[in-house]
Amino acid sequence: MELKRIGFIGTGIMGEAMAAHLMEAGYEVSVYNRTKAKADRLVEKGAKWCEDPQKCAEDQDVVISIVGYPRDVEEVYLGSQGILKGAKKGAYLIDMTTSSPALAERIFKEAEKLGFHSMDAPVTGGDTGAKAGTLTILAGGRKEDFDAVLPVFQAMGKNIRYMGPAGAGQKTKLCNQIAIAGALSGACEALTYARACGLEVDQVLEAISSGAAGSFQLSNVAAKGAGGDWAPGFMLKHFIKDMKLSRESSNSCGLSLDVLRQVLKEAESLEQQGQGDLGTQTLLNYYWDWSK
Amino acid sequence: MELKRIGFIGTGIMGEAMAAHLMEAGYEVSVYNRTKAKADRLVEKGAKWCEDPQKCAEDQDVVISIVGYPRDVEEVYLGSQGILKGAKKGAYLIDMTTSSPALAERIFKEAEKLGFHSMDAPVTGGDTGAKAGTLTILAGGRKEDFDAVLPVFQAMGKNIRYMGPAGAGQKTKLCNQIAIAGALSGACEALTYARACGLEVDQVLEAISSGAAGSFQLSNVAAKGAGGDWAPGFMLKHFIKDMKLSRESSNSCGLSLDVLRQVLKEAESLEQQGQGDLGTQTLLNYYWDWSK
Repeated sequence: MELKRIGFIGTGIMGEAMAAHLMEAGYEVSVYNRTKAKADRLVEKGAKWCEDPQKCAEDQDVVISIVGYPRDVEEVYLGSQGILKGAKKGAYLIDMTTSSPALAERIFKEAEKLGFHSMDAPVTGGDTGAKAGTLTILAGGRKEDFDAVLPVFQAMGKNIRYMGPAGAGQKTKLCNQIAIAGALSGACEALTYARACGLEVDQVLEAISSGAAGSFQLSNVAAKGAGGDWAPGFMLKHFIKDMKLSRESSNSCGLSLDVLRQVLKEAESLEQQGQGDLGTQTLLNYYWDWSK
Repeated sequence: MELKRIGFIGTGIMGEAMAAHLMEAGYEVSVYNRTKAKADRLVEKGAKWCEDPQKCAEDQDVVISIVGYPRDVEEVYLGSQGILKGAKKGAYLIDMTTSSPALAERIFKEAEKLGFHSMDAPVTGGDTGAKAGTLTILAGGRKEDFDAVLPVFQAMGKNIRYMGPAGAGQKTKLCNQIAIAGALSGACEALTYARACGLEVDQVLEAISSGAAGSFQLSNVAAKGAGGDWAPGFMLKHFIKDMKLSRESSNSCGLSLDVLRQVLKEAESLEQQGQGDLGTQTLLNYYWDWSK
């Protein structure tokens, strides 16, 4: 079966860029977003506007969602005007939100009962990756469903990975966020110590970035903050959401990840000070007032 | 003044390789080590054996030390048969041990009073870097002294950095170790979660290593442990020493680095279980019994 028609739910910064790539690749795209104005540019380009997720799912070969929080995923899938109400038998339903593995498993089971193919496929690479069409896509679900929708993924990303059964995409994304929490905090602590003890931060970065201390977070995130740039590549409030999901999911596997918990605690205290919309590099400010 | 004669104190795995490179570069090298047998190979190659640090420092243009702990540095420099007793006026004294910034400053002052040039110049790159002559050397002290001994450093390393006044080399090395603590713990928590929740660890590494979660510690250290290899690139007990120095020095700058403290606590609990001689990747075992 050739997949031609796609319903796309959630046209925020990420979703808008992803849906645009699908249209460029020749798919017929219908869109829904809670705030209609954010879908205007896609509609101008020829996407069909739909009034709710249910209508956006009707008669589509594939339905893609990328929304905010797990509660939004739940509403969009299982709500009274949700995807599962509208989708046609045999449709591929793909949630690309970073969300709960347990919810992905639940949706998979519900969808399967109704004769749909369900996948979780969160992404990494941020808005830059979404715009460039170079996202990493981490997919969970049935392997044959992954193979069937691979051309759809290829229109939006470059590094496309099948990770295992339903929930495995979400779990892999959370691995990514857990590793980031540690690397980011280590980088922020190191640069804060450098500054507090009188070293030149730029020289320290040059000296240590390419060795055993090296990380993307040190060179590209903490370094940005140390240079006085607090603009978000990735907003602190979204990172908090992901760390909470990571804590919840790791707890449910019987783990207590103490560094993750510590970094989450620090991030929440900064959010309470009104820094949630800054980039994650604001973690630097937990230890030291970098505006000094 | 051409520097020709070097006294080298501490011929462990690192020191032996570094002294050998100095001999290959044409320097006349005298050696001292607490355990004499560890200097045998260098003596066979033509190094002159000395009975104590004082004698090893006598009549040398440069004296280099790379020993174990700050207390060893103190003994070797300030002890009754120490370097400061033996060195000739105008000699360059370089401590390459990873040690306390405060001690480096103290030695600098003492050495200066006596008419010596003192530097702290700890290294990164491990025994592999020492053997290959590709160490990173992080130097603190007077800039003119750094310029004078640069050819000596170039015989042992590749990435050679002047970081600032006395203690700045040690402080930069501690920045490196603080960043490692965070990155390593994040990587270990991520891979432990991956394994505990049923993902294929190798596939997760492939999927996330090249993006925002990427780090040397994830790809080269934690990954090694997850593959069942616990052999030390860097021994846990030495990392504990460095983290304690980092904690002490950051506290003295008025900082409390909570992720560093957490990782140190975890590492110490593993050391108490007899894992101090394993590689730092054994941090994986803090959360999960990887032998299962």
